[in-house]
Amino acid sequence: MGKRLLYAARMRDDEEGRRITLAEVAQQAGVSLSTVSKVLNGRQDVSPGTRERVEALLEAHSYRRTTRAAREAPLIELVFHELDSVWSMELIRGVENLAKTRRASVVLTESGTRHAPAADWIEGVLQRRPIGVVLVFSSLPDAVKQRLAARSIPFVIIDPAGDPEPDVPSVGSANWAGGVAATRHLVDLGHRRIAIITGPEDVLCSLARLDGYRSALNMAGLEADPGLVRFGDFHVDGGYARALELLRLPDRPTAIFAGSDLQALGVLEAARVCGLRVPEDLSVVGYDDVMPARWSSPALTTVHQPLRQMGEEAVQMLLRLRSGEPAVTRLELATSLVVRNSTAPPPAGPQAPAEPPAPVG
Amino acid sequence: MGKRLLYAARMRDDEEGRRITLAEVAQQAGVSLSTVSKVLNGRQDVSPGTRERVEALLEAHSYRRTTRAAREAPLIELVFHELDSVWSMELIRGVENLAKTRRASVVLTESGTRHAPAADWIEGVLQRRPIGVVLVFSSLPDAVKQRLAARSIPFVIIDPAGDPEPDVPSVGSANWAGGVAATRHLVDLGHRRIAIITGPEDVLCSLARLDGYRSALNMAGLEADPGLVRFGDFHVDGGYARALELLRLPDRPTAIFAGSDLQALGVLEAARVCGLRVPEDLSVVGYDDVMPARWSSPALTTVHQPLRQMGEEAVQMLLRLRSGEPAVTRLELATSLVVRNSTAPPPAGPQAPAEPPAPVG
Repeated sequence: MGKRLLYAARMRDDEEGRRITLAEVAQQAGVSLSTVSKVLNGRQDVSPGTRERVEALLEAHSYRRTTRAAREAPLIELVFHELDSVWSMELIRGVENLAKTRRASVVLTESGTRHAPAADWIEGVLQRRPIGVVLVFSSLPDAVKQRLAARSIPFVIIDPAGDPEPDVPSVGSANWAGGVAATRHLVDLGHRRIAIITGPEDVLCSLARLDGYRSALNMAGLEADPGLVRFGDFHVDGGYARALELLRLPDRPTAIFAGSDLQALGVLEAARVCGLRVPEDLSVVGYDDVMPARWSSPALTTVHQPLRQMGEEAVQMLLRLRSGEPAVTRLELATSLVVRNSTAPPPAGPQAPAEPPAPVG
Repeated sequence: MGKRLLYAARMRDDEEGRRITLAEVAQQAGVSLSTVSKVLNGRQDVSPGTRERVEALLEAHSYRRTTRAAREAPLIELVFHELDSVWSMELIRGVENLAKTRRASVVLTESGTRHAPAADWIEGVLQRRPIGVVLVFSSLPDAVKQRLAARSIPFVIIDPAGDPEPDVPSVGSANWAGGVAATRHLVDLGHRRIAIITGPEDVLCSLARLDGYRSALNMAGLEADPGLVRFGDFHVDGGYARALELLRLPDRPTAIFAGSDLQALGVLEAARVCGLRVPEDLSVVGYDDVMPARWSSPALTTVHQPLRQMGEEAVQMLLRLRSGEPAVTRLELATSLVVRNSTAPPPAGPQAPAEPPAPVG
């Protein structure tokens, strides 16, 4: 409800032609000015009922206070589910890049095991009065959304999984088209036995990439073999385990679209322990185009997901929301194929199943 | 001079037994209370002479104001030279981990091309009144150090290069011992022709690792062959180029200590294009133990540099400085060898120079 409310409040504000003062809020709520100030500053020593009454009034009148701190040392809050993944850094750099152009600093929070920040996070945010909040792969409880909206602190979600909340502006990228591009590249090289290791079955972007793979095969007049479809975990280990299964099939694939760069690194290791050379015996395509894709041996052909640009666009979106400009609810950036050294035409003749892997010392 | 001054001021403060008030500062400086407040808040509308006079008084009396913001939403400033490198994320996670235990948030700043933050950075910091400042691989101008010290905002440097400023508390790790451990491991496996690609010639940790390599060879009764020593750039490309030179030598090495994980990834690629198998034909040892070392094919034997722990220790150091506890000036954490799949005993017999690399498609 955040965005809708923000706009509604702003419109009402424009209709009235002027802003409400804190004294008027205090009077209407039947509390002291200092209590209103406590609520505004996110202090805990206010009863829930009073807080609710004051917040409702602030909300209805779209009260916005520009503090000196906000003018002189603006902040952008960046919240991650976890800083674990290789693409966290690319997103941080995007947000940092654009923040710098506005002389804003970035406050980084890792929500950890939860997909939403800890309960006391919002108190800190209200204290800091940031320009806005960028959430990566995480969400906010409705009560928190309301408190941000009441103070006109906008928030957007960077959502590479392609599963946006309908009421929160978000930035993603074109997963289906990426799946098509990866598969079409392998078809064009002459591959016919093309396997896919996509991400987890319950993540939308995994399914979008899988659908893109199937559509590219169909468009080329090829039938997708269900025996060549595997679901991984987007990590190296999943790619390794699923690739071993695929490479031991009686009629093993000549190419694997690995669904993520980390899974592709696992596929490279599976090929190595099976004694298969990449790309001579097996072609591999990744997804994401994070730095390790460039550093692997051979360097990975992959689908570029514009993570840095997604970070930048999220901040642009915040700034537009902040200034009251109309903002799109969902921005999806294009993906593109990057051809490096892990793909080549398939070897001639049918492929024998790979040797069982030698024990790794 | 930061640390010395901080302590000196604190001692004087203890001797006097009480803190100076802002009104006394204003009186002694011959300015209004509001001017003192402006200086404290880092405002720009104060003449340089007045600012200097007020700051000198604040400094002499070690004035420390605990704002409500600092009590309720504490911040730690984390400044990077660049967010480019793979180990940035590990350091960030360390700082973030420990900040969380104190319910503090982390403000991230990338100083970019400079090794010091931009001139206006300090104004933002003084506004935000953080618990302290952690600098990674960067430094502060003396004037900035003085302004932080005057407000009792401590700062520490994470310095993996092993080149600390004498007057600033810093956290590093044991580079010489790491070089010894890597080389000894190869000697113990039976290698005698062991090459090193260390980092740039003007970075202290490169030289420490090189000295560790030489000492380990000497301790084993082996002579270091100057023809097997190369200086790289700590990046993949440097490792690749230097490894190609080494692998084409008439009496090529059977093992390469690569000086960093990224350089080791370049060595793996050089081995691949030369048709050499790792570890059967060539052993490779990295340095750092960042995630890509685990993900490479084969996974890298490497020297673990405890980056996350270095981030945590830096925050611990800040908290100790903040609370007035005596803090060490230089903390050096231990490194340790991690054996994975890129090292094995050398192949039998003399090694022919590798084929010139095939063109990479």
